Amino acid sequence: MYLAKVIGTVVASQKSAALTGIKLLVVQPLDEEKRDMGEPLVAVDTAQAGPMDTVFYVTGREASMALEDAKKLSPVDAAIIGIVDQIGD
Amino acid sequence: MYLAKVIGTVVASQKSAALTGIKLLVVQPLDEEKRDMGEPLVAVDTAQAGPMDTVFYVTGREASMALEDAKKLSPVDAAIIGIVDQIGD
Amino acid sequence: MYLAKVIGTVVASQKSAALTGIKLLVVQPLDEEKRDMGEPLVAVDTAQAGPMDTVFYVTGREASMALEDAKKLSPVDAAIIGIVDQIGD
Amino acid sequence: MYLAKVIGTVVASQKSAALTGIKLLVVQPLDEEKRDMGEPLVAVDTAQAGPMDTVFYVTGREASMALEDAKKLSPVDAAIIGIVDQIGD
Amino acid sequence: MYLAKVIGTVVASQKSAALTGIKLLVVQPLDEEKRDMGEPLVAVDTAQAGPMDTVFYVTGREASMALEDAKKLSPVDAAIIGIVDQIGD
Repeated sequence: MYLAKVIGTVVASQKSAALTGIKLLVVQPLDEEKRDMGEPLVAVDTAQAGPMDTVFYVTGREASMALEDAKKLSPVDAAIIGIVDQIGD
Repeated sequence: MYLAKVIGTVVASQKSAALTGIKLLVVQPLDEEKRDMGEPLVAVDTAQAGPMDTVFYVTGREASMALEDAKKLSPVDAAIIGIVDQIGD
Repeated sequence: MYLAKVIGTVVASQKSAALTGIKLLVVQPLDEEKRDMGEPLVAVDTAQAGPMDTVFYVTGREASMALEDAKKLSPVDAAIIGIVDQIGD
Repeated sequence: MYLAKVIGTVVASQKSAALTGIKLLVVQPLDEEKRDMGEPLVAVDTAQAGPMDTVFYVTGREASMALEDAKKLSPVDAAIIGIVDQIGD
Repeated sequence: MYLAKVIGTVVASQKSAALTGIKLLVVQPLDEEKRDMGEPLVAVDTAQAGPMDTVFYVTGREASMALEDAKKLSPVDAAIIGIVDQIGD
């Protein structure tokens, strides 16, 4: 999983049917000091994240496991699965 | 998923039988400001994307899930799954 | 698998239900000389690792296989699976 | 999938039994202008590619799907699946 | 798959039970001229590789397929699957 900050939303009317009703956010990966790290990507939101929230997301096939059962076969490769309260030592 | 711009098409007559009739596009990944980010790749098109469209694509095993049922076992690792109308804050 | 050093913990109260009770650590990947290599990430701990321990972790779908059976479908993509005693020639 | 150029062959007598009779090529990834991009890798050839051919290859679990049925469980993570005739706009 | 050179061994007494009796090596990825390329990683050895051998390894879920049947669900993401005799043109 990686830490990230929510930096935008994606609006797409023409898309895979499996993505209907799913919220898509643009996230910027962060390091443990919350500094930008690498390139932004698009992730499904399963944690009700809001703008500028610090979150962590999962990638690959595991991302579709974060969605509800009916969505298990969704073509999804990144999902926000938690909102970070604090990063400790 | 990543944002990208459609920058070309691939013509290949000698290829895996599983790819027959599937459209292959070259896409350039973009960041949230639509600036080029990283290296171009070849993706299957499942969203009727056209030249210079801004799209988002899924990678890995999830890509084959974007194809129709009969194609579930296709050797495909990147698929365009939506056309972006707008990137918001 | 990659070598890494444990550099922090993640506290997250709002997260995927599948992550309840699972310890999340921030790890810094290392090379074979234990020098920092690449960017930190968040991994599930399955080896009772402590702060500054040298560990190795697995990524991708294999990470969820490191958890107990009941957790097999967890949305997890990185797991610490061992603590390194020594790196030899 | 990525574009690449065939730049070498790998001879290995001591290898996984699942790879018996499978041709292994070294390929250099290319961008859409056929310029070198990133680092070379070893891919299974399923398209009868020859030296210096421009090809495209698939990575990850999808690569083993490019092999014949009997080989479905092969430990293979990159496979050439087509020879490129032309890259268009 | 990638070419690599064996540069070390990992000793770990506290680890996932699934890794008991499995040899772990540190490998340095190589390009087709056997120059160092990218960062070292830890791979399971399934080819009886020795120090400084040139090998090739598979990554991701395919790596666990290189192990014996009883180990199919091992949390393993990189496995040496062959020793390179020669890299040709």
